[in-house]
Amino acid sequence: MTDIAALHSALRSGDRRALARAITLLESTRAEDRVSAEKLLRALMPDTGNSMRIGISGAPGVGKSTFIETFGNRATQHGHRVAVLTIDPTSIFSGGSILGDKTRMETLANNPLAFIRPSPAGQTMGGVARRTREAMLACEAAGFDWIIIETVGVGQSETLVAAMTDVFLLLLMPAAGDELQGIKRGIMELADIVIVCKSDGALKKQASATAADIKHALCMIQRRLATWQVPVMNTSALENIGIDAVREKIDEYRQVLDADDALQKRRRGQAREWLWNETREQLLTELKQDSVVGAALENVLEQVGEGELPASVAARKLVSIFMRSPA
Amino acid sequence: MTDIAALHSALRSGDRRALARAITLLESTRAEDRVSAEKLLRALMPDTGNSMRIGISGAPGVGKSTFIETFGNRATQHGHRVAVLTIDPTSIFSGGSILGDKTRMETLANNPLAFIRPSPAGQTMGGVARRTREAMLACEAAGFDWIIIETVGVGQSETLVAAMTDVFLLLLMPAAGDELQGIKRGIMELADIVIVCKSDGALKKQASATAADIKHALCMIQRRLATWQVPVMNTSALENIGIDAVREKIDEYRQVLDADDALQKRRRGQAREWLWNETREQLLTELKQDSVVGAALENVLEQVGEGELPASVAARKLVSIFMRSPA
Repeated sequence: MTDIAALHSALRSGDRRALARAITLLESTRAEDRVSAEKLLRALMPDTGNSMRIGISGAPGVGKSTFIETFGNRATQHGHRVAVLTIDPTSIFSGGSILGDKTRMETLANNPLAFIRPSPAGQTMGGVARRTREAMLACEAAGFDWIIIETVGVGQSETLVAAMTDVFLLLLMPAAGDELQGIKRGIMELADIVIVCKSDGALKKQASATAADIKHALCMIQRRLATWQVPVMNTSALENIGIDAVREKIDEYRQVLDADDALQKRRRGQAREWLWNETREQLLTELKQDSVVGAALENVLEQVGEGELPASVAARKLVSIFMRSPA
Repeated sequence: MTDIAALHSALRSGDRRALARAITLLESTRAEDRVSAEKLLRALMPDTGNSMRIGISGAPGVGKSTFIETFGNRATQHGHRVAVLTIDPTSIFSGGSILGDKTRMETLANNPLAFIRPSPAGQTMGGVARRTREAMLACEAAGFDWIIIETVGVGQSETLVAAMTDVFLLLLMPAAGDELQGIKRGIMELADIVIVCKSDGALKKQASATAADIKHALCMIQRRLATWQVPVMNTSALENIGIDAVREKIDEYRQVLDADDALQKRRRGQAREWLWNETREQLLTELKQDSVVGAALENVLEQVGEGELPASVAARKLVSIFMRSPA
């Protein structure tokens, strides 16, 4: 049994090893660990909510790691404590990970004002995202005031990252006009700030044209926040161009969010959405563990598997058994 | 109250208007319609499962509509009855839809052997996908033996389409080597057949190079089915090149799937997955309607919204109230 009070106190003092241990506990799927994890979470809550939660998404190859490394190091020079958490859906599909581990961002990993945590293992995207959200709370309680949640943008991962962050940065590469059609509109609609990476060397000119094209495309997309026009920014992590401007733009966005209580509204909505996610998952777990349901389950699964019973009808059957069960 | 027996009988006779009405009923979210919908579904089940379920995904601009139109019309010439259903996540985000409506595929829409149904309205991706899966069963019962489920590939939509189909076609555009890095690996891993569209005119040479690059990239990806090497095919819907070859490749894939009972195994797994999805959603609906939960809910939502209570702890509270509720 983990000593939660001791762990909590070490974490609050900013001990990075305690933070790492706390996150491991939060990620654990063992039932007894969940009890400790929830105890820890409850203790953490009063110290949470004080960070800027920054979602960053970009396909492999756009230069996401290099951007985050430069961006994160610069932010620490401006007094921020930066935590980087990762949601990598490919680790669920293949066991491997596109985003790799800490070695991707070596100077940031060695920066005493930064904390990097790779993608948790997990069987479903939803499960991984639930645990990452709790890891974010732990980082806040440990005094990190900039939490970066990065994702490679496969499957529903951007939507999940947008659902736990205050500002969403979409990273793109310089590309010709035609190729821009391939940028997914649903993702564009999540973006609060669009960044064209690698705006240097031979790509510099194309990067400017790309930014102009994206600005044009953004006109046709519904705004996420009426008071904010989504900026398109050119950056070069290699030549340290535009990186500070992104940081300033995030501060500016924060002020816009604060102005009409939009930040609190967004976070309140997000917290409720997570409550329903958690409730859905916990209810299913309870149903699966119910002994009366268990007695009927094999037969129902068989009928559903053989296409004799539609899933919605079978579900109604299981739910009604579960609700009548004395348990 | 809909006369389910009459509707079912008209649908079985292949009446396309009855099919359209049946799908409207299945998509309805009104409680009384759900009762009729489940009655209809139960009646349909014995006639389902006899089609090839074909998922097709591709970003806007790759030529998906033109491909499906040519491909669908050719299939009807080879004796198939073709239904096209759509899951368009952008209609959830923005109210608008990238995929538009039937007018996209005019000749296929007017083909008496084909049936086209646009994306259902819905508040969540999961909800839309649940109803599309049931629409697929209705199409099967109406005698359609090729069901195409298309998606634009935003958010989790490909994963959901792959979870309800037998074969998954990924449509790509001719592109230079560097840009291929942007193709999402998670999506590549879902593909059973990769198609490079627009392999004609000025793009012909680049299309061949693209196909070669993708073949190379596929070597590094774990196979979905050990007995199937994912083919990469060049097609031109405009010049009707390679379209019949795709149809033959799908027949070939079907044989491979049938050979070691892989089709039945895949479908069995899919049906169970949908059962759990349905169960999760129905349980949450029950919880939200429970009067004892209702009495505590406002306070819990408030605490979660204000960041005083972690979502997982709050969920446990609601679930435990729900389980003790007499209802």
